Amino acid sequence: MLAPDMQVYAPWRDQQFLDAFGGREEMLAYCTANNVPIKPPKISKYSTDANLLGLTHEAGELESLDTRADFVDPGMGVRKTDAPDKPEQVTIAFEKGFAISINGVTVASAAEAMTKANEIAGRNAVGINTHLLENRFVGTKSRGIYEAPGMELLGKTYAYILEAVLDRRSRRLFDFCSSYYAEQLYDGFSEALGSQLVKHVFTDVAKFVTGTVTVELYKGSISFVSATDIPHSLYVEANASMSAVEGYDHKDSEGFLRVLGLGARAAAQQGQIPRID
Amino acid sequence: MLAPDMQVYAPWRDQQFLDAFGGREEMLAYCTANNVPIKPPKISKYSTDANLLGLTHEAGELESLDTRADFVDPGMGVRKTDAPDKPEQVTIAFEKGFAISINGVTVASAAEAMTKANEIAGRNAVGINTHLLENRFVGTKSRGIYEAPGMELLGKTYAYILEAVLDRRSRRLFDFCSSYYAEQLYDGFSEALGSQLVKHVFTDVAKFVTGTVTVELYKGSISFVSATDIPHSLYVEANASMSAVEGYDHKDSEGFLRVLGLGARAAAQQGQIPRID
Amino acid sequence: MLAPDMQVYAPWRDQQFLDAFGGREEMLAYCTANNVPIKPPKISKYSTDANLLGLTHEAGELESLDTRADFVDPGMGVRKTDAPDKPEQVTIAFEKGFAISINGVTVASAAEAMTKANEIAGRNAVGINTHLLENRFVGTKSRGIYEAPGMELLGKTYAYILEAVLDRRSRRLFDFCSSYYAEQLYDGFSEALGSQLVKHVFTDVAKFVTGTVTVELYKGSISFVSATDIPHSLYVEANASMSAVEGYDHKDSEGFLRVLGLGARAAAQQGQIPRID
Amino acid sequence: MLAPDMQVYAPWRDQQFLDAFGGREEMLAYCTANNVPIKPPKISKYSTDANLLGLTHEAGELESLDTRADFVDPGMGVRKTDAPDKPEQVTIAFEKGFAISINGVTVASAAEAMTKANEIAGRNAVGINTHLLENRFVGTKSRGIYEAPGMELLGKTYAYILEAVLDRRSRRLFDFCSSYYAEQLYDGFSEALGSQLVKHVFTDVAKFVTGTVTVELYKGSISFVSATDIPHSLYVEANASMSAVEGYDHKDSEGFLRVLGLGARAAAQQGQIPRID
Repeated sequence: MLAPDMQVYAPWRDQQFLDAFGGREEMLAYCTANNVPIKPPKISKYSTDANLLGLTHEAGELESLDTRADFVDPGMGVRKTDAPDKPEQVTIAFEKGFAISINGVTVASAAEAMTKANEIAGRNAVGINTHLLENRFVGTKSRGIYEAPGMELLGKTYAYILEAVLDRRSRRLFDFCSSYYAEQLYDGFSEALGSQLVKHVFTDVAKFVTGTVTVELYKGSISFVSATDIPHSLYVEANASMSAVEGYDHKDSEGFLRVLGLGARAAAQQGQIPRID
Repeated sequence: MLAPDMQVYAPWRDQQFLDAFGGREEMLAYCTANNVPIKPPKISKYSTDANLLGLTHEAGELESLDTRADFVDPGMGVRKTDAPDKPEQVTIAFEKGFAISINGVTVASAAEAMTKANEIAGRNAVGINTHLLENRFVGTKSRGIYEAPGMELLGKTYAYILEAVLDRRSRRLFDFCSSYYAEQLYDGFSEALGSQLVKHVFTDVAKFVTGTVTVELYKGSISFVSATDIPHSLYVEANASMSAVEGYDHKDSEGFLRVLGLGARAAAQQGQIPRID
Repeated sequence: MLAPDMQVYAPWRDQQFLDAFGGREEMLAYCTANNVPIKPPKISKYSTDANLLGLTHEAGELESLDTRADFVDPGMGVRKTDAPDKPEQVTIAFEKGFAISINGVTVASAAEAMTKANEIAGRNAVGINTHLLENRFVGTKSRGIYEAPGMELLGKTYAYILEAVLDRRSRRLFDFCSSYYAEQLYDGFSEALGSQLVKHVFTDVAKFVTGTVTVELYKGSISFVSATDIPHSLYVEANASMSAVEGYDHKDSEGFLRVLGLGARAAAQQGQIPRID
Repeated sequence: MLAPDMQVYAPWRDQQFLDAFGGREEMLAYCTANNVPIKPPKISKYSTDANLLGLTHEAGELESLDTRADFVDPGMGVRKTDAPDKPEQVTIAFEKGFAISINGVTVASAAEAMTKANEIAGRNAVGINTHLLENRFVGTKSRGIYEAPGMELLGKTYAYILEAVLDRRSRRLFDFCSSYYAEQLYDGFSEALGSQLVKHVFTDVAKFVTGTVTVELYKGSISFVSATDIPHSLYVEANASMSAVEGYDHKDSEGFLRVLGLGARAAAQQGQIPRID
């Protein structure tokens, strides 16, 4: 899409190549037989793709749904049962959508934030060895075991601020756009028009994502400790209460409910409510 | 809606009542002052609603986002740090959407399945003390701490089977309908036309949810162990592999990608790809 | 999907066949050269697919967006400018989703209803020569001119009843499901799981679609005349009025608006309203 | 929302006012009885709201679904049967989402474009007297007759360009956002966060909406004549054809279909296809 004149050559989709070599097993056999120095199949029981954000483990023994998620030897942290016995608190401050400090120490870049988050979450088994049966773009299913500790930690704390900032209506938009963009990325349409369009929604929302969140990490789980200094938060303690304070008149809800009740009554009177068989 | 002629009387929305009593604090003060024997405010630091599916803790000290989730003293299980040091495996068999046995023992009803699941998950801190800032129907936000151990366990294992059964397209429908129905229930429209309509989607999907799932519970987390005997699973190990087997011809994906590439090339050639500023 | 063991042979995707013949033009040339008796290309300036529901005209001269929609010589009716100078009224009665009579005359089957509707709408140019640039499943675009007079007439009158029956919330579900099912059909997934699931929503809604609608057809357009005898209609004339009648207390809307105003005020106070740049 | 400290006073929701006057009819009676000089109820059989974009006619005789749409005496054009007997062609050029010329004459502003479009469409009965049963925000239904000739003409021609520019995936995003924004506006949330967020999608799409569209207006209808000079159009005549040209290899679709067929076959083999009862 970015270079429409460019051709892609994928050997495993080239008939001539395939006729010569077959699939992964056949190629591994060829390498073994010909002393090509690769990690031999007996040892790597699955294959792994890696980048800063996470690891994907697939194929080999993992193809069986009888193989547990913890069959994978984690590369970015530890299994839950190997994590420390003491919970670890972590505090992340966000400013306009970016993590700007972790545990009070300024982070210089998104990459540094991710690296630190990977380390802290990984050692507590957060985001390690997650099982997923995914629907490939081509329609078949694929089983993967994922590691993404930093994504899990940053994502969850970011989400806690979003919960305070987004009202019901903007939440509906945000959720649709999130699913949409995720699908675009997964299917390889990251640069397509739809992806470009939807990105503005996220960069605009990010402008409101400022605040400090503290969570506790413990053997694979994240627990909420506090969320403070969120200037755009719609959560107002005074409004949350049922007490007679702050502009909420209980008579008003009576009116609110009577108005909504009109529709409910009409539905019943017009025979819409007796359940459909 | 079910009884359109019925009137609802809510004392806290009745002006006369409110004039006499004020809000929750004022009423508690009244009770204390008049020796009305209720659980005094000093002891109950929050209020709790309960049913078979879970507990909701709200108000009082929980109204502050500085109060951690584990401030709540769990009623359906233990905190993560109090859970056993040894993981516990649990196997749930589903037939046409219903949990029919847990750890090999037949369960006689949905209520029994939920009761057992509450017990097993609760003692491992699964689904205990979950923080949520929710958007009330009226537009304000509310903070709650939830317990729903059985829902978490049954929901997650059910979801593992769904992952195997639903293709990409039916997944899109299912996800929309899930969100839709959740909102209907939350807003109090459980009997409205839309709710009646959408229910058929779930009862129809349930017909395909047969299978046995084993997971491991450990200090608040659920890990995948195995999923077997899923007659309607679309996950075929043979198709998951990249090897030269089972009706998947690598040449075919070349064609698939070329066809999709047509649209990608057109977008680039027509000036849609240079990023929007 | 219905017969997974069956193989499909499409000559125009068979390399051997294609090498021998090339595309549509080359094949027409071959036929002409070899005196194969087919409708010669000079006369058929586009190709047409037909069934009871409508005609699709594509290819040939229609490929140019400089060719007007009325270039097509209609097969199911007349062009707007050729339609009668006097409007024609038509009354359709629906019972549980089916058209049961047209202009007071009982129709014995869906096929008969469609046949009659095609005739009446077609002669008034309704649903004739509609231009569409559609997105093929494979990602390219295609230009078509459509005729579907009966679909237009039955669809519009059905929609008028739906407008009376569906509340806001069930409308949202219905609209999603309609788009979803349309895409399933268009893409060739009519029998897939998602299609089976969504169909129940339509058959359930249909149970409420009873009523009689009269419209006026005139040179391509449909105008609303009346909609009566809709037992499940939520439209209550008394509620539609602003007068002091029928269970709607104007004070109530004051409460309704105050409650909604809480969220609006919070958004403003928390700095969410000054427009995003 | 824009001025959170401001209070709104609506007389018809003020109990004291209502006790004194009652509803619309009572107020009209009062005016008549007291010689207050207003348009008397005998003459205005419905009430009309007006702005540059259109007219809304409601209440009075229009509350009955037995009152035809053409009961309304149009204010922005003529009824279909009163429109000219000769079709009128109109050509609109768009640049980056704005109508910049109509029939070759430059328009200086959006307001001028709308004014001209109202005039041209209105005299051909386009967008005149449209019936709508709408779902008010409060849950009740309301019947209205609408006039919006310019919106209809500009909207339809804009849509023809969009059909050429948006691919399947960006269309899905656009359609969701359109419905979302429409609902925000209708419900009075035009300045809320969700509205601000979604607007960027439309301003970004508009950057690609350049082109010239000619349509024919005739007694209420709009017919497609041509669409040219659309620099970002994804419609490529060469790709539309089935001929052996321009980078589309028919063998490729064989591969495309085989790949998709994998999922279809799996669904059938796993017992998902026999229809749900």
